Amino acid sequence: MRHTRGVRKIHVIGIGAGDPDQLTLQAVRALRSTDVFFILDKGEVKADLTGLRRDMLDAHVEAGTYRVVEARDPERDRRAGGDAYSPAVGDWRSARADIYERLITEELGAEQTGAFLVWGDPSLYDSTLAILEEVLERGAVAFEYDVVPGISSVSALVARHRTGLNRVGRPVQITTGRRLAEGFPEGVDDVVVMLDAHQTFRKYADEDVDIYWGAYIGTPDEILVSGPIAEAAPRIERLRAEARERKGWIMDTYLLRRRPRD
Amino acid sequence: MRHTRGVRKIHVIGIGAGDPDQLTLQAVRALRSTDVFFILDKGEVKADLTGLRRDMLDAHVEAGTYRVVEARDPERDRRAGGDAYSPAVGDWRSARADIYERLITEELGAEQTGAFLVWGDPSLYDSTLAILEEVLERGAVAFEYDVVPGISSVSALVARHRTGLNRVGRPVQITTGRRLAEGFPEGVDDVVVMLDAHQTFRKYADEDVDIYWGAYIGTPDEILVSGPIAEAAPRIERLRAEARERKGWIMDTYLLRRRPRD
Ligand SMILES: C[S@@+](CC[C@H](N)C(=O)[O-])C[C@H]1O[C@@H](n2cnc3c(N)ncnc32)[C@H](O)[C@@H]1O
Ligand SMILES: C[S@@+](CC[C@H](N)C(=O)[O-])C[C@H]1O[C@@H](n2cnc3c(N)ncnc32)[C@H](O)[C@@H]1O
Repeated sequence: MRHTRGVRKIHVIGIGAGDPDQLTLQAVRALRSTDVFFILDKGEVKADLTGLRRDMLDAHVEAGTYRVVEARDPERDRRAGGDAYSPAVGDWRSARADIYERLITEELGAEQTGAFLVWGDPSLYDSTLAILEEVLERGAVAFEYDVVPGISSVSALVARHRTGLNRVGRPVQITTGRRLAEGFPEGVDDVVVMLDAHQTFRKYADEDVDIYWGAYIGTPDEILVSGPIAEAAPRIERLRAEARERKGWIMDTYLLRRRPRD
Repeated sequence: MRHTRGVRKIHVIGIGAGDPDQLTLQAVRALRSTDVFFILDKGEVKADLTGLRRDMLDAHVEAGTYRVVEARDPERDRRAGGDAYSPAVGDWRSARADIYERLITEELGAEQTGAFLVWGDPSLYDSTLAILEEVLERGAVAFEYDVVPGISSVSALVARHRTGLNRVGRPVQITTGRRLAEGFPEGVDDVVVMLDAHQTFRKYADEDVDIYWGAYIGTPDEILVSGPIAEAAPRIERLRAEARERKGWIMDTYLLRRRPRD
């Protein structure tokens, strides 16, 4: 990032999806050049995840060289479904923009560098970049920012299963549980599903599909299951329910792979 | 990776897509636990890329603790087009499996650890995992292997453009130039294109599409262009032709983003 004098700087740093060793050298450098870390607590139990971020700072940045500012993320209206999804997200995003704007204005000196630590890769189902753009558009505070890519839960999932995302010359789609509920995507046989609270894979249990599923990937609680979906689905349901019960929250992702029809 | 005594071990290590700082800490650890590195030279000019791998070893692994074995990748039959794609890839894969089998058998001691350094993330358009599975199936040599995920050129591309892969709640597809030539994928408005030797994006120059393009991402030669495709396409064509001429080879990737119809 080119540094202009007297302008606040912000790093948006992808920190990997659970394994602290998935930090890149570039991310470590960015951590070390940061004065103020903004950690947004999701309200929803994610204390474990906030803890992981703090452990990363302890491990890689000299104590006393930085400050951590924690803030509370606004609650997202999860009741909004179907078509109402985007507007609800819009309201929530602008409530977040208020918070980010305040954090940057009040907590970051004009010559300082701040950072947002983003789970996985900042490019996948994360709103940090859109929110920073919104703050910039409002024009109340000026800053420069850059993005440090991270290992996504998608890359971590398939690495643990030792399989590829796509097959030779074929496409792969990354989508949400909500979209998968509307049908198996057109024109692809390899589909990664994130943000699925409803185990939507069960819908395809009668089809010629293999599943590669993972929960808490990269953490000590990691669970992996793979196989033909008819056999794997009941096992996943059971393990998922047990784990959720035990920990109070769950993060899972899976790849659905349609077997070639021949 | 659980280590069984007397069984060869192999790491498949994603090394990022150009920037040596995109190595993860996990990748650095894997490099340091490796006795023999296998570097396959693509035949096609990619000396620069082989150089980058050697520089990474120099930077992160103590000299004298490892060996590098270079081998020549078999030529792929690039004349085969359309439906012939898969069989040609099949032949090429089995020729590669011959080489991998020989490398593992002859160059790796029974208690040793070998590594293949894979460009970007091993899960995207890379055949290393499939080839290792083929070698294992043949049964002539036994080994254990694990996969270290890497920053893909896809993550690197969007990080440099400071944009996301998907829009809120929407899917993203990753595909090839060859597939894009058959039409804009169904059901998605965000499409990442790799392996495109023919600048297939030009086909969509009259549509309401934005392009985020990058070549040699993460390297000192990096070129980035973004904007409405009608304006950006001619610029990309010119820059791409110049760069290709100057360096003798090019690697580029792009995101096409259809603007919402409203
Ligand atoms: C809001 S998205 C953020 C994704 C993140 N930016 C990434 O690159 O992985 C959260 C979703 O990511 C997936 N996820 C994130 N971390 C995970 C992990 N360690 N194990 C399994 N799934 C994970 C789950 O599907 C979860 O619903
Ligand atoms: C055989 S695929 C390997 C992809 C790799 N496994 C990854 O994760 O990026 C090669 C394609 O990746 C893309 N690519 C790889 N490195 C790149 C870079 N540094 N800049 C732009 N594109 C790149 C190009 O589309 C190229 O045709």
